[in-house]
Formats: sequence, C-alpha cells, structure tokens
Amino acid sequence: MNREQLFQEIKRKRSFLCIGLDSDIQKIPVCLKSSADPIFEFNRQIIDATAEFCVAFKPNLAFYESQGAAGWMAFENTVGYLRRNYPEQFIIADAKRGDIGNTSGLYARAFFENLDVDAVTVAPYMGEDSVRPFLTNPGKWVILLALTSNPGATDFQFIRNDSTGEFLYETILKKSQNWGNAGNMMYVVGATKAEKLVGIREIVPEHFLLVPGVGAQGGSLGEVARYGMNSQCGLLVNSSRNIIFASPEDNFAEKAHLEAKSIRDEMDKLLEIKQL
Amino acid sequence: MNREQLFQEIKRKRSFLCIGLDSDIQKIPVCLKSSADPIFEFNRQIIDATAEFCVAFKPNLAFYESQGAAGWMAFENTVGYLRRNYPEQFIIADAKRGDIGNTSGLYARAFFENLDVDAVTVAPYMGEDSVRPFLTNPGKWVILLALTSNPGATDFQFIRNDSTGEFLYETILKKSQNWGNAGNMMYVVGATKAEKLVGIREIVPEHFLLVPGVGAQGGSLGEVARYGMNSQCGLLVNSSRNIIFASPEDNFAEKAHLEAKSIRDEMDKLLEIKQL
Repeated sequence: MNREQLFQEIKRKRSFLCIGLDSDIQKIPVCLKSSADPIFEFNRQIIDATAEFCVAFKPNLAFYESQGAAGWMAFENTVGYLRRNYPEQFIIADAKRGDIGNTSGLYARAFFENLDVDAVTVAPYMGEDSVRPFLTNPGKWVILLALTSNPGATDFQFIRNDSTGEFLYETILKKSQNWGNAGNMMYVVGATKAEKLVGIREIVPEHFLLVPGVGAQGGSLGEVARYGMNSQCGLLVNSSRNIIFASPEDNFAEKAHLEAKSIRDEMDKLLEIKQL
Repeated sequence: MNREQLFQEIKRKRSFLCIGLDSDIQKIPVCLKSSADPIFEFNRQIIDATAEFCVAFKPNLAFYESQGAAGWMAFENTVGYLRRNYPEQFIIADAKRGDIGNTSGLYARAFFENLDVDAVTVAPYMGEDSVRPFLTNPGKWVILLALTSNPGATDFQFIRNDSTGEFLYETILKKSQNWGNAGNMMYVVGATKAEKLVGIREIVPEHFLLVPGVGAQGGSLGEVARYGMNSQCGLLVNSSRNIIFASPEDNFAEKAHLEAKSIRDEMDKLLEIKQL
C-alpha cells in the first residue's frame, strides 16, 4: 500500500487507528480456549468487530512466537484472513527485527514475500545495512524505532551526540532519511513523549509516525494529534490492550467494537480540527 | 548452563568455537531437498559432524522464520535434537529481540521456557525494561549487542556521548552492568573490530563475549584471542558459513567436520598461549 492510499483510507474511515493484536494466549477469553486455533479465532472475531473503525492492524510477533510453531500458524492465518477479507487494511508485523545485511534480507523475505504484510518494525542499532533489505520491495515499508514509549527509552535514546548536539533518536531520524523516504519509511514515536513530536516534525515533516503508548501506557491522543499531525495526517496511533482486552468475558468482541468506535469518534474530531 | 560449566567445556574440548546454524534453505545441498524437513536434516548432519569441536551452536532465527511455521518446526527440532544428544552444548538463539517489558517477557518465555535454549541475543536500543525479562530465568543468558561486525555498526555505535565522551557501545556496556552480571550476560563484539577489544576488556574484564565476523566477514581469530581472552577464556567465537557451507555437495558434513577441526586446532594453540 502506498502513502496516498493510506491517506485516502484515513479520510474515508475518519480514523488513524491501528489496533495491536497483542493476543496473549493467557488473556484470551475462556470461551475460545477449546477452539482449534484459539489465537486466530480471537483475532478473527476482534478484526470483524473493529475493522470498520481502524486503518491498520499490528500483530506483535512475541505473542505468536511464545506459542512456537502453532503461534506462527496463528500469525500466518491472521495475516491471510486480513488479506482476503480486509484488503484495505495496512498490516504491520511488529517484530523489531534487524541483523547484518544478508540476514535482514531473510527477515524481509519472511514478512514481505511469504506473508505479504505491508510493514515491519525494525530496530536501528545495527545501522544502514540492517535496514536497507527491508526497503527493496515496492509498496512495502520499514517502521524504524526512533523514540519508544517504554521506561527504558531514556537509557540510550536521549544520549546527546557530542559532535551535533542531537539526541540519539534525532540522529537516527536524520541519518535514516538517506536510506529511505516518506514513501517507504515510518518511525515509531511513543505517545508518552508527545511533546517531543514538535521537534520530530521539524526533522521528518512528511513521514508517517506509528505512535504506541496511548491508553494502557498513559499517552494522550489529543496531544499526539496536536503536535504530530501533518497535512496527510501522518499518524497511525496504536491501541492494543485497551481494545482487544476491553472485556475478559464472552462479550469481548462487542466491547472491543465499542472501544474502537469511541477512539474512532475522537479521531474524527481531531481530523476535523486539522481540516482533513 | 553457568559460567564455570562453560569454561570447563572450553578446556575439555580445547575449543571456544560457536557454530552458527545459518541454514539458508537456498544453500542447502540438493541431496537434502527431498527430505521431510530439509533444514533440520541439514542441521542434524552438521551437528553430528562438528559437535566434538565446538562448545556452542547458534541458530539465527531469520533463516527459520523465512520458512514460516515449517521453519519454526525446524528450529524447534534442532534445539530438541541438541538438548537430547549433546546436552553439554550451549545453545544460542540468535534472535536480536527486544521490546517493551511485558512483550520481551513473552520472547523470554518462547526461548527459555518453551524451548530451553541457553541464551538469546538482544538488541539494546529500548533499554533496561526490554532486557531485564530475559535475565530472570536461572542459568539463562542475555547476549546484548554492543559492537557488531557489519558495515552499519559505524552509523550509531560510535556516536560519542557528550556528557561522558564514551562511544554509544561503551555506554551500553557500562549501563547494562546494572541489569545483569558476568554470570547471566554476554556481549556481541564483532571480530572485524578486534583492536577495540582492549578498551572493551577494560569495561567488562570478566564477561564472556560472543564474537562473530571471523572468516567470511574478515576478522582474525588470532587478534581476537590476543586482545579479548581472559582467565576463563571469556570468548565464544562464531563461524557460520565457512563451516556449514564448506561444500555445496554431498560431502558437506565431512567438509564441515574438517573446517571445524581446523579452527579447533587453532583455538587449542591460542588457549595454550594463555596457559588455559
């Protein structure tokens, strides 16, 4: 999916919501536990209940790998189900991969060729040749970690570069623009650091930002939109647990539907403020 | 496996060799392609042919994930085969994972509880809470990326911290010592930067270092031992392609045996120089 198509979807749905399919087997409602593939069955019902309110789904690979080969099957089945039934959805494999060049190329093969997801999250630490292999498939995206939403973000991401005075995450934003462009790269910027979006938008005015941390982690959607939205929206705001585990009971899909709708309604207003 | 046991294995085998099971399906000898699980069958024959010369095996997950759920089965079968037949081998899942705390915990569950590997490679960018969940299982190890062997290592790892004057990888070495110790943490240090081992040993004199980049990537084993070996050896030197793809023909296992033996013989001499 290209940038213009994603923007059109955002306008059509009045939403820039990404739903994180962090489908922890230990939190899935009991009523699903006896199905042949509980994680996939949970995802299918969540997707059907919420797809009208979001433009992207983001399965985090940890929740699938923790179930071994069966978990991988659930992941593949989820991607296949989305591709067949909701081809307009932007699918993000939240994998935070990154390795030496030839090895990153294999991860790219796994996610873009075997599975046809739209984007993979990638960790920047190993530099250019660990990222570039993810940028060679037309219509596919790298979402590079820049400023993450977790407490440990302060350990290294705010180290100041003695030759430029920039924070490490700013150097990553700048340098990586030599590797890709606003049509094949996005950045992870945590909502828990919304005020930093002003400076980030000076460095990457056009790129889409994937923003986790709204909701369970405490970030504010209004602030994210205020500081981060650009003329093509430029935001995918992720919510995971708040939506998919809105209820631990049989009514989980119905509650997820209501929660996603409520976020979409708020996003609709925020888009209106920016006249989008 | 604890540090003392690993050191005893190194002395017993006269080897600190780690064999990287980067078992690319596209490079596996044709004669194996018709077997039910070609990657596992390849690994099994490589393991049987080389285990006497090495103390560790390191499957890189990219090569398994690129084959989807079937690849995960091959990975699980490989770990199971090692555990049953070579319990003295140190198994490293080269996964370069790292995510927010609760999610890293699920990766730890995948590798340490479901699969019983000894160590996982972890990327440092997201900081403390992304690493700590891998440190809670007794006898299990984090191998944190510090200075990698690839060209992109120079993009960010050598950024100088304006408040301490340290390189980023040095800050990572120092800070991470608050999270773990020489009994549950190792560091990745590329052999292509062997001269940096002097400074690294000043920061982490006791920790084991996992050293990729000898062989195909151009690093020198002699230099690595000279600058990096400590009183408990403190080194696991990895070789992948040079050994496992020593021959593309039916005699691949035999050639891998000879290549691993030749490295072991060199390591024996290097251990002798240090009177180990």
